Amino acid sequence: MDHTRFFDKKSESLTLQQIVDITGAKPFTDVDLNVKISDISTLEKATSSEISFFSSGQYFEQFQKSQAGFCLVDEKSASKAPQGMTVLVHKNPYFAYSQIVNSFYKVKDIEFDGTKLIHGSAKIGEGTKIAPNAYVGKNVTIGKNCFIGPNASIMDNCVIGDNCIINANVVISFAVIGNNCGFLNGAKIGQDGFGFAHNAGVNHKILQLGIVEIGNDVEIGANSCVDRGAIENTIIRDGAKIDNLVQIAHNVIIGKGTVMAGCSAVAGSTKIGNYVQVGGGCSISGHISIGDGARIAGMSGVMRDIEPMQIMAGIPVQPIRDWHKINSKLVALIKKSDKNN
Amino acid sequence: MDHTRFFDKKSESLTLQQIVDITGAKPFTDVDLNVKISDISTLEKATSSEISFFSSGQYFEQFQKSQAGFCLVDEKSASKAPQGMTVLVHKNPYFAYSQIVNSFYKVKDIEFDGTKLIHGSAKIGEGTKIAPNAYVGKNVTIGKNCFIGPNASIMDNCVIGDNCIINANVVISFAVIGNNCGFLNGAKIGQDGFGFAHNAGVNHKILQLGIVEIGNDVEIGANSCVDRGAIENTIIRDGAKIDNLVQIAHNVIIGKGTVMAGCSAVAGSTKIGNYVQVGGGCSISGHISIGDGARIAGMSGVMRDIEPMQIMAGIPVQPIRDWHKINSKLVALIKKSDKNN
Amino acid sequence: MDHTRFFDKKSESLTLQQIVDITGAKPFTDVDLNVKISDISTLEKATSSEISFFSSGQYFEQFQKSQAGFCLVDEKSASKAPQGMTVLVHKNPYFAYSQIVNSFYKVKDIEFDGTKLIHGSAKIGEGTKIAPNAYVGKNVTIGKNCFIGPNASIMDNCVIGDNCIINANVVISFAVIGNNCGFLNGAKIGQDGFGFAHNAGVNHKILQLGIVEIGNDVEIGANSCVDRGAIENTIIRDGAKIDNLVQIAHNVIIGKGTVMAGCSAVAGSTKIGNYVQVGGGCSISGHISIGDGARIAGMSGVMRDIEPMQIMAGIPVQPIRDWHKINSKLVALIKKSDKNN
Repeated sequence: MDHTRFFDKKSESLTLQQIVDITGAKPFTDVDLNVKISDISTLEKATSSEISFFSSGQYFEQFQKSQAGFCLVDEKSASKAPQGMTVLVHKNPYFAYSQIVNSFYKVKDIEFDGTKLIHGSAKIGEGTKIAPNAYVGKNVTIGKNCFIGPNASIMDNCVIGDNCIINANVVISFAVIGNNCGFLNGAKIGQDGFGFAHNAGVNHKILQLGIVEIGNDVEIGANSCVDRGAIENTIIRDGAKIDNLVQIAHNVIIGKGTVMAGCSAVAGSTKIGNYVQVGGGCSISGHISIGDGARIAGMSGVMRDIEPMQIMAGIPVQPIRDWHKINSKLVALIKKSDKNN
Repeated sequence: MDHTRFFDKKSESLTLQQIVDITGAKPFTDVDLNVKISDISTLEKATSSEISFFSSGQYFEQFQKSQAGFCLVDEKSASKAPQGMTVLVHKNPYFAYSQIVNSFYKVKDIEFDGTKLIHGSAKIGEGTKIAPNAYVGKNVTIGKNCFIGPNASIMDNCVIGDNCIINANVVISFAVIGNNCGFLNGAKIGQDGFGFAHNAGVNHKILQLGIVEIGNDVEIGANSCVDRGAIENTIIRDGAKIDNLVQIAHNVIIGKGTVMAGCSAVAGSTKIGNYVQVGGGCSISGHISIGDGARIAGMSGVMRDIEPMQIMAGIPVQPIRDWHKINSKLVALIKKSDKNN
Repeated sequence: MDHTRFFDKKSESLTLQQIVDITGAKPFTDVDLNVKISDISTLEKATSSEISFFSSGQYFEQFQKSQAGFCLVDEKSASKAPQGMTVLVHKNPYFAYSQIVNSFYKVKDIEFDGTKLIHGSAKIGEGTKIAPNAYVGKNVTIGKNCFIGPNASIMDNCVIGDNCIINANVVISFAVIGNNCGFLNGAKIGQDGFGFAHNAGVNHKILQLGIVEIGNDVEIGANSCVDRGAIENTIIRDGAKIDNLVQIAHNVIIGKGTVMAGCSAVAGSTKIGNYVQVGGGCSISGHISIGDGARIAGMSGVMRDIEPMQIMAGIPVQPIRDWHKINSKLVALIKKSDKNN
C-alpha cells in the first residue's frame, strides 16, 4: 500500500505472533513466530513479506498463483496453498483480515484550522475561484482555474488538477483527480466502501484503505457516489462520463470514454472496459468484467461477464436479440392462452 | 403521540363538533358532539379518547380490533366498525385525517441563533469535533467523541449519541440516534415522508408526525435517505448497515444487523426483520413484511411478504431456485424456436 | 432562445461562412455564405433566420415540417429536407450542433460578493428566513415567507416564489420556481443535463441552454435531481409531487398533479401527462410520451409510449393484466416441469 497521503501506518511491521494474537488464527505448519510481516495486500500484489487473505472461491486462481508470504485461509483451503506461503488458518479469514488492517493502518486525523474554511496548509492554483462558504481541508492541492461552489467540501489531502468544476454541495475526499473534470451538484466522492465482515452476529466495519483515482475530462453527475477502494483503488479513467444518482462501489474500474446513464449502480470490484455504454437504471453485480465497447440497455441486471462489443439487455442480462425474442414469445403465449379461454 | 421534542400540540383536545366542522365528516350514529377527542393515532394504538382512520382494506383486521374511540371511515365500511367505536363517515377518510392532523399538531418553528452556526442552546459532548461550517440547531444534543463534518446540518431538537461520525454534507433532522453510528457523505435523515391525500384534483400534503429512531452501530451510506414516520416512527435497529443511495420511506422498520446494498428502496410501512440481506437495486413494496434472515438477490422486485430465512430473487420476487428455472426455460424456449426457424 | 437571465449571447449572429468554418459542414446546395444566422433552436421552433439540427430518425416528422432556415443534417438525409431549408451536411450533426452552441452562448460567470453569503444584489421577500450558512447568489429573487435551510445553495439569477421551503443542503440553480413549493433535504435542481456528442473517441460536453421551470405547489424529494434542459426547458407543472432519489433528465415535462414515487428515473425529453402515477423504482426511457392519468406499477421499465388512463407494469412495460398473466404462466410452466422430472 502506498497511501501515506491519506492513511498513517501504525506499525512498521507486525510479527507472526502478533497476527496470531490479534486474530486467533493458527499457523497450518510449524513456523517461526518471530518473523516480521511488513504489510497487508491483495493476493495478486502481496510480496513475500506481506500478508493477504483468501475467502472466496471466485479468487482461487489468484490464491494459487499468489506470491504472498503469508495468507489467512479457512481450514478446507489450507492444504491448497501455493508453495512458500505461510498459511494461517481462521474460520473467517475476511474477518481476521479486518482485524489486521486496523493494526497496520489508520485514517489520518482530520484537523480543522480553527474557524478557517480554507485550511492554511491548502495550496490553491492561480485563477481558481472558491465560494465564500466552501470548505477546503488540510494539505489539499487544487490546480489552476478551478471553480469550487458554495457548500462544497474538499476534505484533507485531496489533489485536484487544473480547470476542474466542483459544483455546489459536492464532497471530495480520499481522491486524486486529473484535469478538466466536472462534479455536478451534490456528487460524493471517496467515502468508505461498503465493507463489513460478519462475525458472531456483528457486522464489523473494514477499514477502507484505497482511494479514488479520477483521470482527466471525467464528469460525475449530481448526487452520484464513488466509494474509495477497500485495498486497491477505485479508478475512473480519462473521458468517462457518469450521469446523476449513479453508485460506483469500492475497487470498481471504469474505462476510458465509458458513459453511464442515470441511476445505474456498479457493485464492488467490477471492471468496466473502455467506451462501454450503460443505460439508465442498470444494476451491475460485483466481481465481474465488462469488455470494451459493450452496450447495455437501460434497466438491465448484469450478473455475469460481458464480452467486448456485445449488446445486451434484460434481467438477467442476455444478448439483446434474445431478450426481444423472449419478450415476443411471452406476449404470444398469453395471446394464445386468451384465445383458448 | 409523544413527539413533543419536535412537534407542538396546538390543541389539548378537539370536540367531535370541531372534527365534523373541519372535515365535513358525518357521525354514523347519533352521538354527543360535545365529547372531547384528545389526540390522533393509528388503529392499533388509539385509545378510547383518540381518533384514527380506516382507508385501506389491507388494514381491515386492525380496524375490527381497534380500541379507537373515534374513527374516520368511508360509507361502505361504517357498519363494520367494532362495538364502542364512534364512526365518522367521510368519502375520503385519509384526506379527512390529513385535515385533523393539522388541527392537532404543528412542526416546531425553526429558530436561528442570529448568525451563529452552533445554536447557543445546543449541548455538545466532550471530545466532539465540529467542522467550522457545520450547522447545529436549537436544542440539539450531541454525545462525546463525535465528528461533525463540513457543511453538515444537524437540525433542531435532534439527539445524537456518543462516538458518531456525521460526515460532510449530511443532514440529520427529526431524529434520535444511538452510539457508534456512521453517516456517510450526503446522507439525509428525517425529512418528510412522501404522504399526500388526493382530493378533488389536489395532492394534499399530510403532516408527517413521526420521527426517525436509529439504534447503535448503524451505518447509513452516502446520499441515502431515511424519511421520518407519518404517525409512527421510522426505525433502524442496532447494527443495521445501509449502503449508498438507498431510500427508506416513512414508518419502515429495519431489523438488527440487516444489511442493504446500494440503490435499494423500501416503500412505506414495510417491516424488514433481523439479519436480512438485501442485494443492490431492489425495490421493496410498502406495507409488507420480510422475515428474519431472509436473503434477497440484487435487482429483485419484492411485492409480497417473505418468510424468514427464504432466499429470493426476480421481478416479481420468488424462491431463487424457481427464478433460475424460469430463466433457463426461457432461454431453452428461444433456442428451440431458433432451431425450428 | 430567451434565457438571457442565465446565459450570455456571445454573438448577435453568425454568418453561414462562420458556421461552416466552426463545424466543417458543407452546404448541400449553392448558397450565399454571407447570410446571417441569428440563433439556434429546435426543429419545431426554429424560424427562417435560425439554425437547427437533425440527427435522429425519431424526429423525421419534425424535420420535414421544420421552418428552420438552416439545418445540420447527415448526408443521407440531406435530400429529404423541406423546401426553403438551407441544408448543411455533416457526418455528425449533433457534434456540429454542440460546436455552434458554444459560439452563440455561454453561461454567465458566477461572481461571488467577497465573503458575503447573501449576494448584495439578491432580493429577499418579507418574512423569508435564511439560515446563517445558506448561500444566495447574484441577482437571485426570493419571494415572501420562504425558508432557506442551512447549507442550501441558491445559485445566481434563480427566481423563487412565495411560501417556498428550501430545506438543508438543497441546491437550486438555473431555475424559475412558483409559489408554495417544497424541496426536501439535498434535492438538486438545475445542473447540466447529461448531453455529450461522441466524436473521434471523445465525449464532447454540450452546453445545456435550457433551464428548469417549476410551477406552484410542487414538492421535490430528498436527494432527487432535476437537470436543466438542453435547448428547451425541463418543466414540472403545478401540484406535481416527486419523492426521494428520483432523476428527472433534461427536457422532461412532468404534468400537473403527477406523483412519482422514490428511486424512479425519467430519461431525456420524455413527456409525462397530468395526474400520472409512477411507482417506485421505475425507469422511463427518453423521447416517449405517457398519457394523462396513466398508472405505472413500481419497478416497471417503460420503453414505449403509454396511452392515457392505462395501467401498466413489467419490464418491458405492458398492460398490468398481461403482466400478471405472464407471471402466472411462468410459475405454472416450472411447476409442470417439476412434476415431469
